[in-house]
Amino acid sequence: MKSQITNALSDFFFEYETPRQVLVRNRRVGVVCRLIQLLVLVYIIGWVFIYEKGYQSTDTAVSSVFTKMKGVGYTNVSGKERAWDVADYVFPPQGDSSFVVMTNFIITEGQHMGECPELTGKHNCSSDADCEGGSFKRQMTGVCNRTTNTCEVLTWCPVEDDRSIPDPPLLMSAENYTLFIKNSVTFPLFGVTRSNLVEGIEGGYISKCFYHPKDSPLCPIFKLGDIVKLSGFSFETIAQEGGSIGIVVDWTCNLDMDVKHCKPQYNFHGLYGNPDEKDKARASVGYNFRYAKHYMENSVPKRTLLKVFGIRFDIIVQSLARKFDIIPTLTAIGSGVGIFGVATVVCDLVLLHLLPKREFYKNMKFKYTDSHEQDRDSEEASTENEK
Amino acid sequence: MKSQITNALSDFFFEYETPRQVLVRNRRVGVVCRLIQLLVLVYIIGWVFIYEKGYQSTDTAVSSVFTKMKGVGYTNVSGKERAWDVADYVFPPQGDSSFVVMTNFIITEGQHMGECPELTGKHNCSSDADCEGGSFKRQMTGVCNRTTNTCEVLTWCPVEDDRSIPDPPLLMSAENYTLFIKNSVTFPLFGVTRSNLVEGIEGGYISKCFYHPKDSPLCPIFKLGDIVKLSGFSFETIAQEGGSIGIVVDWTCNLDMDVKHCKPQYNFHGLYGNPDEKDKARASVGYNFRYAKHYMENSVPKRTLLKVFGIRFDIIVQSLARKFDIIPTLTAIGSGVGIFGVATVVCDLVLLHLLPKREFYKNMKFKYTDSHEQDRDSEEASTENEK
Amino acid sequence: MKSQITNALSDFFFEYETPRQVLVRNRRVGVVCRLIQLLVLVYIIGWVFIYEKGYQSTDTAVSSVFTKMKGVGYTNVSGKERAWDVADYVFPPQGDSSFVVMTNFIITEGQHMGECPELTGKHNCSSDADCEGGSFKRQMTGVCNRTTNTCEVLTWCPVEDDRSIPDPPLLMSAENYTLFIKNSVTFPLFGVTRSNLVEGIEGGYISKCFYHPKDSPLCPIFKLGDIVKLSGFSFETIAQEGGSIGIVVDWTCNLDMDVKHCKPQYNFHGLYGNPDEKDKARASVGYNFRYAKHYMENSVPKRTLLKVFGIRFDIIVQSLARKFDIIPTLTAIGSGVGIFGVATVVCDLVLLHLLPKREFYKNMKFKYTDSHEQDRDSEEASTENEK
Repeated sequence: MKSQITNALSDFFFEYETPRQVLVRNRRVGVVCRLIQLLVLVYIIGWVFIYEKGYQSTDTAVSSVFTKMKGVGYTNVSGKERAWDVADYVFPPQGDSSFVVMTNFIITEGQHMGECPELTGKHNCSSDADCEGGSFKRQMTGVCNRTTNTCEVLTWCPVEDDRSIPDPPLLMSAENYTLFIKNSVTFPLFGVTRSNLVEGIEGGYISKCFYHPKDSPLCPIFKLGDIVKLSGFSFETIAQEGGSIGIVVDWTCNLDMDVKHCKPQYNFHGLYGNPDEKDKARASVGYNFRYAKHYMENSVPKRTLLKVFGIRFDIIVQSLARKFDIIPTLTAIGSGVGIFGVATVVCDLVLLHLLPKREFYKNMKFKYTDSHEQDRDSEEASTENEK
Repeated sequence: MKSQITNALSDFFFEYETPRQVLVRNRRVGVVCRLIQLLVLVYIIGWVFIYEKGYQSTDTAVSSVFTKMKGVGYTNVSGKERAWDVADYVFPPQGDSSFVVMTNFIITEGQHMGECPELTGKHNCSSDADCEGGSFKRQMTGVCNRTTNTCEVLTWCPVEDDRSIPDPPLLMSAENYTLFIKNSVTFPLFGVTRSNLVEGIEGGYISKCFYHPKDSPLCPIFKLGDIVKLSGFSFETIAQEGGSIGIVVDWTCNLDMDVKHCKPQYNFHGLYGNPDEKDKARASVGYNFRYAKHYMENSVPKRTLLKVFGIRFDIIVQSLARKFDIIPTLTAIGSGVGIFGVATVVCDLVLLHLLPKREFYKNMKFKYTDSHEQDRDSEEASTENEK
Repeated sequence: MKSQITNALSDFFFEYETPRQVLVRNRRVGVVCRLIQLLVLVYIIGWVFIYEKGYQSTDTAVSSVFTKMKGVGYTNVSGKERAWDVADYVFPPQGDSSFVVMTNFIITEGQHMGECPELTGKHNCSSDADCEGGSFKRQMTGVCNRTTNTCEVLTWCPVEDDRSIPDPPLLMSAENYTLFIKNSVTFPLFGVTRSNLVEGIEGGYISKCFYHPKDSPLCPIFKLGDIVKLSGFSFETIAQEGGSIGIVVDWTCNLDMDVKHCKPQYNFHGLYGNPDEKDKARASVGYNFRYAKHYMENSVPKRTLLKVFGIRFDIIVQSLARKFDIIPTLTAIGSGVGIFGVATVVCDLVLLHLLPKREFYKNMKFKYTDSHEQDRDSEEASTENEK
C-alpha cells in the first residue's frame, strides 16, 4: 500500500505533461493567427500594462483640509464707512473645508421680538378677518394693519426687507481676499502621507506667491478673484446673489515613482449651475443664508439680522494613488493567457471551418475514439483509427 | 546568421500551433462535460456579465451638499410668546451638510462670571472643608453655601439647571419646517457631473412640491416630520431629547444608459440606536449641545446659555457609477476561459479515473516517452511507442 | 436540413474534446516543472487566497461622527479669574467631526469701528504723505499718527496686538478635558451598520472609562492630554501656538466572521508637520483663527475679538470591509489557471530548447503538416509525416 503511494508520488514528480500540438504550416492561417495573437499581446502589454497600469493596485486617500482667509473689505452705505475683517465675513470662523465668504448682505438692525405688519405684498388684507389662522411660515395675530394693509405677525420686528438685493454688491473688495489651503492626505494602503506644502513650497515662497495655473501651480495661496474667474463666473454676478464654487484638490499619484512627484493639482468649477449651462441653473441660483448677532439693549434681547449673500467654497479632495502590486499583475497576466486561449479558439474556427483543406486539418488535430455505434468493440477500432 | 533569423521569423509567422485533441465519443462523458461547460458559460455570461455587470468599471463620486431650512417656530413659556426663525434654530447657519435643528431647549439667561453654589445634588457639603480641591469639571472655591448645602464654584452664574427636560418639547412646530437639499456629484473617472435638481425638477415644481417616497421621490424639499417618520422615529420622542438622523442620497448609476436616468434616491435612518434596537441605543441616546449668546450689560460681560436639544441631520452621499470598460470585460473573459480550463480538468478526472474504459482513454490522451529505466535508448523506444 | 442540425447538436452533446498530451518521463524536467507548478499553486492558494483574501470583495463605509467635549478650564489673567466651559472653548459648538478646542488666546475687548493707528512696526510713517493709498489688507485714511508714528486705518479699534503669544498657554487645563466620540458606519454593499459603541461598551462602562491603547482600546472617551501625547506632541508646545491632530477611526472588518468582531481602532497623528519632521513643518506651523463676539454698548456696535489658538481635531473614518464573494473568487481561480498555463510555457521552453534530447521531445510534442514547398500535395505528405 505504502509503496503504491510512493510510486504514484514519484511518478507524479518525475513526469511532466505537455499538450501535443499540430504545427500547421500554412501561410494564410499562420499569418492570420500570429496577427491575432500579436494583437492580444499588444493589448495586454500595451493597453492593460503600460497605458492602464494594470500591474498596480489603487487606493484613495483620507484627507484633512484647513483654510485661512486674509484681507479686509470696506463698505460705505449712505455715508457710513465700515471695515469688514475675517472675523466678520467668513462663516464658520474656524477654517473648515467648506465655508462662505460674504460678498453682499441685507442688514436689519435692532430687531426685537414683537408684533408687526408683514411687508407689502405678503399677506395683504383689508380686514382683521383676512388675518386669521397661520402657517408654518408665519404666526398671524389676527390683526390687519391699516397703514400697510398687511397682516400683523409675531416675529422679530421690524421684519427684514429682502425684496431688493444691493447692486453692485457691497463687498466687491472680496475679489482681493486671499485664501490659504492646507491639505494633508494619507493613502492608508501604501502608508504614504503627503501635504500640499510639497518640497519647495516653503515659508519664504508662500509669503509672496499667488496661485497661477501655469506660473505657480503649486502655490497654496489663492486670490478670490482668480478662483472665480478660473471657474468661469464673473465676480460681480456671483458676488451679488452668491454662488457655490468647488475647489478640487486632485492627488493623482504614481507611487512607483519617487514620492516627491506626488503633487496636488487645483481645479475650480461652479457646483450648481455653471455660467454656460443657463438651463440647469434656472431652478436654483444664488447662495444665501441668514445669520443673527444677538445682544441685549435695556434688558431687551435684540438682534442684528444679516441676510448673507456669499460665495461658498467647498474644498473637495479627489485622490487616486497607484503602486505596483503582485496580485493585479498576476491577475492581468493570468487573464491575458485566457484571452490568448480565445485567440486560439478563433484561429481553430478559421482552420477547421473556413479553409478549403479543413477536413485535412481536422484529421490532424483530432483523434477520434470509435463512433457511438461501435462502442462495444472500441479497443480495436481506436487502434485502427490511430494507425 | 542574418538568414537564420529571417528563417526563424518566417517559420514563426507562417506556422500556427493548435493543440491536438481527442474527440471522445461517449454519451455519458459527453453529456456530463458539456453540462459542466454550459454551467460555466451560464455563470460567466449570466452572472458575471449580465447580473453583476462585470463588463463595467466602477467609480464613486466626489460631492458637495448645501441645505436650507425654512419655517418659523413658536414657543409660549409661562405666557411669554416668542417666534423662532431659521437664524435662531439652525446650527450652523450657513447650510452645511451636517446641521442641527433645535427642537427643545433649556435656557439660562443673564449668566455672568462669578461664584455661586452648585445645584442641589451635586457636591453636597456640610462645611467648607468638604469643598476643597477641584477637578477638571469644577473649580471649587472652598466655600460651602449654607442655603443649598452645596459647594460654591467659580463659573457662569447662576448655574444651569438641566435636571428636567421640557416635556412636551418646546418647538414641536419643527415638525412643519421644510428642508431643501442641493447636492452635486461628480464621477471623476467618467467625467460626469449631476445635480439632484435633475431634468424635470425645475423652479416651478420645487416651489410647491414635498418629498414623498412614492408620489414625488425626486422632490428635494422635505418636511421634517416626514423625515423623522420615514426613519422610524416618533417626532415627539426625538424632539424632546434630540437624536441623529442620516439622510442618504444614493446615486447608483449605470452610465451606459442615458445620463438622465442617473437619479438620486433618498433614504432615511436613525444614526445611533434605531427606535427598534432598544438595546444598542441604551448606551447613549439623545443629542444635545450647549450654545452661548454673549452680550454686555452695564459693562459686565454676560451670556445667555442654551442647552440645545435637537435633531442632527447628516446628509450622506453614497454613490456608485458603472460604465462599460474594456479592461474588466477582457479580464472577465480571460478568467472565464481559465474557469473553462478547470471544467476540462474535472472532465478529464472523470474520464481518466472513474470510467470503466479509463485505461483506453488514457492511452488515447497520453503519449508516453520511454520509462526512466530506458532513458538511455529513448529515441528508438519512443518510435516504437508511437506506432 | 432539420436532421442535419439535430445531428450536429447530438454530435456536439455526445462528444467531448480533451487535449492530447505527451507524458514526459524525465526526472529533471519533471521535478523542475512540478516545482514551478507547485510554486504557482502555493502563490494562488497561499498568497492570493489566504494572505490577501482574494475570495472576498471589499467595500468602504459611509459614516457619521458626533463629538462631545467635557471639562472646565480656568484662566487668571492679571488677577481676573475666569472659568471657560464647553460653550466657550469649542468651535463650532454642535459637535462636528472637525472642531477646535481653544488652548490659548489673545483677547481684544471693546473694539468699535473707527480710525486708529496701526501697531508700531506696521506701516511706519513720518508724515501724512506716507499714509496714502491702501491695499486689500488695510484701508489707509491718509493720516500719520504722531504718537506711534504709524498710519491710521479704518478698522475695529483698538487694533489687535498679536505680536506676542501668551506663554505658558492660558488654558493648559485643556489637558484634562475629555472627548466623547460617537461614530456610526454603514457598509452599503454588505448592508452592515456598526457603531463604535460596540458590544460591551455600555452606559455603565462609558461613564467611568478613559481610552488607553492597551487597557481600554474601545473606550470612546479620550483625555485631550492622552491624544496629544499619543500623536507625539508635547501638550504645552501645541497648546501655545495651536496645531492639528487627526483621530483616525479605523474599521478594518472581515465580515465572514461574526459581525461582533468588527471593532474600531483609534490612531492619532499630527496632520501638518509631525513633531519629528521639523523640516516639513517649517512652512506653516500652528493653528489659529479669529472669532468675534458682537454686542451693543450705548447704541454703539462693539465686539470682543478673540485670536484663538487651539488644537484642531479631525475625526477621520477609515474603513475597509471584506466579505466572501463568488466573483472575485472565480476571477482569482480563473486567472490562476492562466498563470498555470504560463508555467507550462516555461517548462516547454526548457524541454524544447535547453534539454539535450530537445529534438526528440519536439517530435513527440509536435506533429507537422507538410512544409510550405509541398503545399500542393499536402494530403499524402502529411500522412507520410504522421507515420
